[in-house]
Amino acid sequence: MIPGFSFKVSHRDGESRVGQLSTPHGVIETPAFMPVGTRGSVKAVLPDQLVELGAQIVLSNTYHLHLRPGEETVRRLGGLHPFMGWDGPILTDSGGFQVLSLAELRSIDDSGVRFKSHLDGRDVFLDPEGVLRIQAELGSDIAMVLDHCPPPQEDRDGMRRAMERTILWAERSAQARADLHTHAPMAVFAIQQGGSHEDLRDECTERLLEIDSRVAPFDGFAVGGVSVGEDRDKLLATIPVGVRGLPPARPRYLMGVTGFQEFVHAIGSGIDMFDCVLPTRNARSGYLFRTDGEIVRLKNSQHKDDPNPVDERCDCYTCARFSRGFLHHLLRRGELLSYTLNSIHNLRVFHRLLEDIRGAIRSGTFAEFTQRWR
Amino acid sequence: MIPGFSFKVSHRDGESRVGQLSTPHGVIETPAFMPVGTRGSVKAVLPDQLVELGAQIVLSNTYHLHLRPGEETVRRLGGLHPFMGWDGPILTDSGGFQVLSLAELRSIDDSGVRFKSHLDGRDVFLDPEGVLRIQAELGSDIAMVLDHCPPPQEDRDGMRRAMERTILWAERSAQARADLHTHAPMAVFAIQQGGSHEDLRDECTERLLEIDSRVAPFDGFAVGGVSVGEDRDKLLATIPVGVRGLPPARPRYLMGVTGFQEFVHAIGSGIDMFDCVLPTRNARSGYLFRTDGEIVRLKNSQHKDDPNPVDERCDCYTCARFSRGFLHHLLRRGELLSYTLNSIHNLRVFHRLLEDIRGAIRSGTFAEFTQRWR
Repeated sequence: MIPGFSFKVSHRDGESRVGQLSTPHGVIETPAFMPVGTRGSVKAVLPDQLVELGAQIVLSNTYHLHLRPGEETVRRLGGLHPFMGWDGPILTDSGGFQVLSLAELRSIDDSGVRFKSHLDGRDVFLDPEGVLRIQAELGSDIAMVLDHCPPPQEDRDGMRRAMERTILWAERSAQARADLHTHAPMAVFAIQQGGSHEDLRDECTERLLEIDSRVAPFDGFAVGGVSVGEDRDKLLATIPVGVRGLPPARPRYLMGVTGFQEFVHAIGSGIDMFDCVLPTRNARSGYLFRTDGEIVRLKNSQHKDDPNPVDERCDCYTCARFSRGFLHHLLRRGELLSYTLNSIHNLRVFHRLLEDIRGAIRSGTFAEFTQRWR
Repeated sequence: MIPGFSFKVSHRDGESRVGQLSTPHGVIETPAFMPVGTRGSVKAVLPDQLVELGAQIVLSNTYHLHLRPGEETVRRLGGLHPFMGWDGPILTDSGGFQVLSLAELRSIDDSGVRFKSHLDGRDVFLDPEGVLRIQAELGSDIAMVLDHCPPPQEDRDGMRRAMERTILWAERSAQARADLHTHAPMAVFAIQQGGSHEDLRDECTERLLEIDSRVAPFDGFAVGGVSVGEDRDKLLATIPVGVRGLPPARPRYLMGVTGFQEFVHAIGSGIDMFDCVLPTRNARSGYLFRTDGEIVRLKNSQHKDDPNPVDERCDCYTCARFSRGFLHHLLRRGELLSYTLNSIHNLRVFHRLLEDIRGAIRSGTFAEFTQRWR
C-alpha cells in the first residue's frame, strides 16, 4: 500500500479475518462498519456521538460533495476532516453508485458520466481522472475509482459492457493517480463489477489485478454492484465469488449491502469493510434493531406506556436513558430529537455486532457465532 | 415556600438581583434562562448537551403533554424527569398561553377553557384544579396556575375581564393545591395579567397577594401577557409595573419574552426567570446570535467559504468545532445536524449572557453592563 497506509491480517477463522487498516487518520479494526455521511454529516448524529458509539471510519460521497458545496469550498474550509469535524479516517465513494441511483439524470459512455444535477439541472461531468482529483481535493483518506454500476435487470451483454467500462476506467485511474496532487497520502481502491455472473466477476478480478501489477497497485478492492435490487439468493451467492481471487493481503470492501444476515455472510466470505444506510434511514422511520436480531417498530402504539429501553442488552446512550414510551412519543410527534436518539441506537447495534464478530474471529468461534445468527 | 423549595437573594444591584432557587432537583442560579421543551424535548438538543451549555432548568407544557402522550403515560414512564432524561428542575406552563395562541380552537368561561385538540379535534377541558392535578401527575417541580392570557388588542374592559378571571382561577388554584396528591413537592406560581394598563397590573398584584395571605401562599409570581404582540414601548413599560408590588422574597418569572434587550431590561426591573423559544426557533431557521449582539444569517451565501466560527468568542461545542461554511452547507442541504448544531450555539449564547449578567450584578456593575448592551 502507499506510504501512510498499511493493512495487516492478525487473525483468521475460515475465510473470515480480523485486520488492522492503518491510515494517516487512525487505525481501523476490520471487519469494520462505515456509517454513511453522504453530504458531510451522518444524518442527525454528531462526530463525538459517532466516536462514542464505536465508529472508526465514516463514508462520504464525491458526487454529492462535488455538487454542493464543491471540493473547492471544502478545501478552503481545511478539507473534509475539519469540515465535518471528524478526525478519523474517511472513505469517499466515487459517484459510481449515482450512475445507478440517478440513472434517469445521466448519460454514460467510455469518456465518463454526464449528470443533470439533481439540485439545479446543471450539467456535471465526472470521469475517472476527475473523480480522483476531486477526492484528493476533498482530502479523502480512501478514494474509490469511478465505476459503472449497472441495474440488476441488465442482461449478460449489458453486464459485460458495464464491466469492460469499469476495467477501462480502473486503468485510467491507476494511470491518473501518479499525476495526482494530494495534500496528504490517499489510498485508492478498485471496484469489481460483473453482476451475478460468476465468470464475469472472476474475469473482472483477473483484469483488475493485471492493471494492478502492470500500471500501479491499488490499495484495496471493492465488490460493487451487489445489493442493488437483485434476488437475495443471487446476492448471497455473488459475495464469495466476488471475494475469491482478490489478494488476501489487501482490504476488501463490500459496497452498500444491507442487513445483518448479509453482513455475517459477507464476513464469513472474507469481507473486511461495509457501508450501509440502513441503520440511520430505518432509525428515522422508527425501525429499531436489537442485538437479538428482532426489530422494534417504534410507531406501534404497543410501545406508548412501555418503560423499558428498546434493547435491555444495548449499551448506547439512548437505551441507557430513554424508554420505548418516550421514543414512541418523540417519533409520533415528529420531534427532531427522535432522529438523533434512534440513529445513535441503530448505529450502536451495528457497531457492537461488528465488535462481537471481531471477538468471535479472534477466538476462532465465528462458525458458532454464525449459527446463532441463523 | 413549600418544603423542598427555598429562594434566597444573595446580591442586589439596583432592582436587579442574583438569587438561588432551590428545588428537589437542584439549585437554579437566578436570573435564569429556561429553554423550552414544549412536548418533553428541547428541539434537536439532548439533555446532556443542555447541561453542557449551562441550562439549569427546562420548561415544558401542560396542554401539549396532556394531549400527547397524556399525564397518565408520563406517570407510568416514571414522571417527567425520567421521561425526558432530564434530572434538573422542570417548570410546566399551565396552558394559559394556549388560551391565546390557540384562540380559534377554544371557548372560555369562568369554569375553565374548552379546547378542540389541535391534533384530532377531540374536546379537551382544562380548569384551574385540573391543570394543577395534571402538573402534579407529570411530576413538575414548578407548576403554573391556569390564567386567561388576552390578546394585546383587547380593550380595557376585555383586559379587566381576563384579569378578573385570572384572579378567580388563582383563588381556586390556591384552594386546590391543599387537596392535591403530589408524589414529590411541587411549587405553584401565580400569574399576573392586566395588559398594558398600570392600574390593572397593580390591582392584580394586590388581589393575588390577598389570596396569597388569606387562602394559601404562592411560591412565586409570574408576569404574564407580556410580549404577546403589543408595541415594544408598551412591552418595556409594562415589565417594571408588573414587578412592582411583587414580594421581593419570592422568585419572579417573566413569561415568554423575546430578545436580548428585553431580557436585560427585565432583569434591571427585578425579574428572576425567563423562557423564550427564540434561540431554538431562530437556530432552526439559520439565525444565529453572537455574544456581541450581532445576528448571523447563515443562509446567506457570504458564509459559503468562511472558515471562521459563528462567534469567535463563543465557547460552545458548535463554535469550537465547525466553520460558518460547514454550518451554511448543512442548513442549505437541510441536514438534520444543522438544527442540533445551531440550537446548541444559540442556547449557549443566551445562557452565557445570563452568566455574564449574574457576574455583573454580583460585582455591582449591572448598570455598566446595560450601557454596553444599549
